[in-house]
Amino acid sequence: MEEQVGRAFVEHYYHLFDTDRSSLASLYHQSSMLTFEGQKLQGVHDICSKINQLPFDKCHHLISTIDAQPASLAGGIVVFVSGSLQLTCEEHPLRFSQMFHLIPTPQGSFYVQNDIFRLNYG
Amino acid sequence: MEEQVGRAFVEHYYHLFDTDRSSLASLYHQSSMLTFEGQKLQGVHDICSKINQLPFDKCHHLISTIDAQPASLAGGIVVFVSGSLQLTCEEHPLRFSQMFHLIPTPQGSFYVQNDIFRLNYG
Repeated sequence: MEEQVGRAFVEHYYHLFDTDRSSLASLYHQSSMLTFEGQKLQGVHDICSKINQLPFDKCHHLISTIDAQPASLAGGIVVFVSGSLQLTCEEHPLRFSQMFHLIPTPQGSFYVQNDIFRLNYG
Repeated sequence: MEEQVGRAFVEHYYHLFDTDRSSLASLYHQSSMLTFEGQKLQGVHDICSKINQLPFDKCHHLISTIDAQPASLAGGIVVFVSGSLQLTCEEHPLRFSQMFHLIPTPQGSFYVQNDIFRLNYG
């Protein structure tokens, strides 16, 4: 089950990121945390400000691997992604790894409680 | 707090891995899960069999980054590590990323509930 949820979430997340970054706000809550290249942010407002202000206009995420596991008896899921990020301003794609800790909502979907992103330097 | 716990855990984990791999059994429980390069394992026995049977004798983990966040109100912590793995049989170190979801024990320490490991291919 967690594999299907993880894959569906990841495809949805990066589709929004690549097409309408501001709409990612719907996937975070007030308690959510993002660590982006070592910078810690908390809450929908600060997280989405960071994402919206990243210094590139267009990007395309290409996913290499998705691993998912149940994180708790309460229905949480941890998802670990590796892939590459193609920016229009850069010739070569950037390799990245990212993890998400997803928490189920009463409405039957999931929100991101924990999000940690790192570029992989070779 | 979670930064200190994350760093202490990561240093302890890779020290054991590099000096006495079999002793890592103490850090996993029956409910623990490991996904190693896409292969899913559950429980202390299966996880430690996998780790002990990795096809190299000696290795050295060099840590590049450690990011940690509280994962729940119950005291869980997610830790995200990037680094490189030097094998005695390989000239070049292998870049990796790994995440841990740590759960507090009644004794005041932590065990690994979720562990996902991936090599980063360039």
